[in-house]
Amino acid sequence: MLNTIHQALVRLRNNKSFEFFVIAVIIISALEIGAKTFPLVPWQIQLTQYMDVFITLFFLIEILIRFIAEPRKKDFFKSAWNVFDTLVVVISLIPIDESEMALLARLIRIFRVLRMISIVPELRILINSLMIALPRLGYVVLLMFIIFYIYGAVGSFLFNDISPESGVLWGNIAISMLTLFRVMTFEDWTDIMYDTMDVYPMSWIYYVSFIFFTAFAFLNMVIGIVVGVMEEEHTKEREKGQPSLADIQAQIAALSEQIQVMQTEVKDSERDKPAP
Amino acid sequence: MLNTIHQALVRLRNNKSFEFFVIAVIIISALEIGAKTFPLVPWQIQLTQYMDVFITLFFLIEILIRFIAEPRKKDFFKSAWNVFDTLVVVISLIPIDESEMALLARLIRIFRVLRMISIVPELRILINSLMIALPRLGYVVLLMFIIFYIYGAVGSFLFNDISPESGVLWGNIAISMLTLFRVMTFEDWTDIMYDTMDVYPMSWIYYVSFIFFTAFAFLNMVIGIVVGVMEEEHTKEREKGQPSLADIQAQIAALSEQIQVMQTEVKDSERDKPAP
Amino acid sequence: MLNTIHQALVRLRNNKSFEFFVIAVIIISALEIGAKTFPLVPWQIQLTQYMDVFITLFFLIEILIRFIAEPRKKDFFKSAWNVFDTLVVVISLIPIDESEMALLARLIRIFRVLRMISIVPELRILINSLMIALPRLGYVVLLMFIIFYIYGAVGSFLFNDISPESGVLWGNIAISMLTLFRVMTFEDWTDIMYDTMDVYPMSWIYYVSFIFFTAFAFLNMVIGIVVGVMEEEHTKEREKGQPSLADIQAQIAALSEQIQVMQTEVKDSERDKPAP
Amino acid sequence: MLNTIHQALVRLRNNKSFEFFVIAVIIISALEIGAKTFPLVPWQIQLTQYMDVFITLFFLIEILIRFIAEPRKKDFFKSAWNVFDTLVVVISLIPIDESEMALLARLIRIFRVLRMISIVPELRILINSLMIALPRLGYVVLLMFIIFYIYGAVGSFLFNDISPESGVLWGNIAISMLTLFRVMTFEDWTDIMYDTMDVYPMSWIYYVSFIFFTAFAFLNMVIGIVVGVMEEEHTKEREKGQPSLADIQAQIAALSEQIQVMQTEVKDSERDKPAP
Repeated sequence: MLNTIHQALVRLRNNKSFEFFVIAVIIISALEIGAKTFPLVPWQIQLTQYMDVFITLFFLIEILIRFIAEPRKKDFFKSAWNVFDTLVVVISLIPIDESEMALLARLIRIFRVLRMISIVPELRILINSLMIALPRLGYVVLLMFIIFYIYGAVGSFLFNDISPESGVLWGNIAISMLTLFRVMTFEDWTDIMYDTMDVYPMSWIYYVSFIFFTAFAFLNMVIGIVVGVMEEEHTKEREKGQPSLADIQAQIAALSEQIQVMQTEVKDSERDKPAP
Repeated sequence: MLNTIHQALVRLRNNKSFEFFVIAVIIISALEIGAKTFPLVPWQIQLTQYMDVFITLFFLIEILIRFIAEPRKKDFFKSAWNVFDTLVVVISLIPIDESEMALLARLIRIFRVLRMISIVPELRILINSLMIALPRLGYVVLLMFIIFYIYGAVGSFLFNDISPESGVLWGNIAISMLTLFRVMTFEDWTDIMYDTMDVYPMSWIYYVSFIFFTAFAFLNMVIGIVVGVMEEEHTKEREKGQPSLADIQAQIAALSEQIQVMQTEVKDSERDKPAP
Repeated sequence: MLNTIHQALVRLRNNKSFEFFVIAVIIISALEIGAKTFPLVPWQIQLTQYMDVFITLFFLIEILIRFIAEPRKKDFFKSAWNVFDTLVVVISLIPIDESEMALLARLIRIFRVLRMISIVPELRILINSLMIALPRLGYVVLLMFIIFYIYGAVGSFLFNDISPESGVLWGNIAISMLTLFRVMTFEDWTDIMYDTMDVYPMSWIYYVSFIFFTAFAFLNMVIGIVVGVMEEEHTKEREKGQPSLADIQAQIAALSEQIQVMQTEVKDSERDKPAP
Repeated sequence: MLNTIHQALVRLRNNKSFEFFVIAVIIISALEIGAKTFPLVPWQIQLTQYMDVFITLFFLIEILIRFIAEPRKKDFFKSAWNVFDTLVVVISLIPIDESEMALLARLIRIFRVLRMISIVPELRILINSLMIALPRLGYVVLLMFIIFYIYGAVGSFLFNDISPESGVLWGNIAISMLTLFRVMTFEDWTDIMYDTMDVYPMSWIYYVSFIFFTAFAFLNMVIGIVVGVMEEEHTKEREKGQPSLADIQAQIAALSEQIQVMQTEVKDSERDKPAP
């Protein structure tokens, strides 16, 4: 009988309508979270509380169905998406006193919206492809971090004491790096520059060179991604059956050999022929 | 006689000078709209009113000509551009009391400028190619919306009550998402950040991570378009007669077979030869 | 004797050292212009005046040499660069009363710096390639102008009277389009938006949609250029001797025909052979 | 015995653990620099001083090991990275009175962090590839500098005296170019524009045209890099064994000749045949 239940659950998991229903519940859950950011009257608060219970239970049941439907239980947690889904469900099960830790409870529930990514295959593919691009960008990010670190240290040594606002902008290396991130986004960076230029008139070199370095590193990142994506497209195309130039070269070489063989045969036939 | 009129209209519609005249009227219509934004003396206002009547009538006649000249009336509304043109003309025919709904009447007339796109073929092609790119970007836009939604919810939960300005910036999830759009365009985002960092000193993580995620998603969009465009170019090139590598591979295979056949024939001829 | 002078001038024009000397004078002329923006003591002003006379005369002589050295006088003005150089020289010859039109005289002299582009071949190539890209971008620019025009008209109709600052930002369609250019560069655009949202709470749609449209059109421009450049590179490569796939296909077809001919010959030889 | 030491040092230099240890010391050195930007209690200051001595000595020893392990001493300074490393070490050896030149001493030590780039091969490759891209961008940078110079001169001639803030923004050509760099980054550029538009209402042309020119030049830079990178990728691919289309064309031509030869042989055999 257990087997029958198992098969029913597998059918349910693979059912397209069930998937749409799960997506619908995720969207409702997202809307409920959004609704909570507006001022609500008592009966609406009551409603969101009932919905919270329903959504939590539904997600728990859904994850159980998928777990039971998995033929080999060990493989279930091999998928990072399953681990993520389980975590989101389990954490939202922990009873939190609404009055005290209400904020934390709310924040945890927000992550339910991320389940949208784990359930819609196209979004999952998108995220996976971003993940693949990450290591390729690792060293560029490291290089940018080194640039930020050096400029951050220089900034907090030089500009630490020159104006009342400096403490907020150049107080220590961490604050300096945040200020530099602001400079990189061009956000009111000239106000900061004019401030320091009153004391160090040449400090514009610091800012202009920093913008050049980071823009250059950023450009490199963009190009890195573009070229990487193109290479992958190229590889995929070949796997789809489109031959490479090397394949064609090999084919022609085979043809040449074939003709060679025939030539030898023709010659042999000549030799075998009776003298005139 | 109806037939003669019909043919005359077809000739008129396909006439290059007629097309240029329509474009001229659209430009005049655009200039008139622009002129109305300047303060005008009475005789100028009188002039724009006469022009309004003329332009409305001209567009009505033009659309009628094109409709009558269409061989199969049903096909006329199959083109989205014709539907758009007809809508613009019909709506501007509705008599609106200038004194009361003047603003609405003016706004509707502005859309006449868009007729420029429907009449110039190069612009129509441009818009069509943008439309083709849209679905490809659909899931990236959905992903960005999810990022916005989650950050918006977090923002309005955390930052709702911390400063007098917070209501305007983090009042509810809709306002928060608008604020995040502002952060994405780097518009005075540090002012917002410094505000929240007074209460939550670690809230810079919220902003910096958001900028990273959206910049990454945006990059992905750009690359998506670039790669998509290149693929299309590639396909077009092949349709223009440029063969693919697979075509060449097939050609060489055919050649190989040809040689195979010849080889067999040579062999056969050897076999048929009288023993020496 | 005239012939000897002519040949001497041709040799001078083609002399590498002469070219470097011209570049040096252009750089000196640029430095002099830059120096004039600083407060100068009398002897320095005297010096710049002497230099002005020297540079003007030198450029006049240089253009005369190039004109005389030109074998066919008519061709000289066929080059846009020569026309530009002559204009810059001739205009700076017009005697302008320093006291009255000093500003204009100074502005005209600034354009001498542009002669750098006409004299350095690499810069000339760069500018030419930008010029080639321009027509391709024409319709995209037209489309952006239409978007600007429509949004400008809507803006000046809707937001004209809602705040004391509106006159400066939305006074008429020209001012509105400048304000929209500001919004496109993300420059304090939220200040403008919050202003209009006080009266029209939904006016954020106006700004957000405008940013989307222009960003999209801009992206299209970038991609247009990239794809255009790539196509040109591709064409250049082929002209350099790299065959196209169609060339190779034709070559294989020729080979196939060659084998066909041989096959026919082998068959003929069979037929001609005496029956065993 | 010297020989044995030499070999021991070579082994040490090539040891993977030694490399990781050097990286660890560089990271500690970076953290120490960062720590100094925070307010420290006496014992912490004491600690950083001991660490300074240790790091300086360690880097000295490490560079000596690498120098001694180098088989040909002359080649050591041929590598720009070795020269850089030696400079960083030697300069930090110069005894600087902490009380007087403390700032300078600190700044010099920051450059130790850059040793990270010289020690991690992946970062070294990244920097080298950026260096290769530099000359290619040279003329674009020159063109941008000319644009900046001309606009800078025009700006300081026209806008020098029109408002109390003008001295700071348009005082001379150097300040003007810094202001234009600010305009290029879209940083509060409209404030500057509205200021000058009070006197010269058409001065928006100055700003809008400048933004167009620099954006165009910047785009050109991006495309220059992208196309350059793609070309290199293409070249690398061919070096990896992937044949070019020209290679394949040559191969087919060889094949054609081979068939030609065979054809001749067949014909010869016909001729040699006894008449029937």
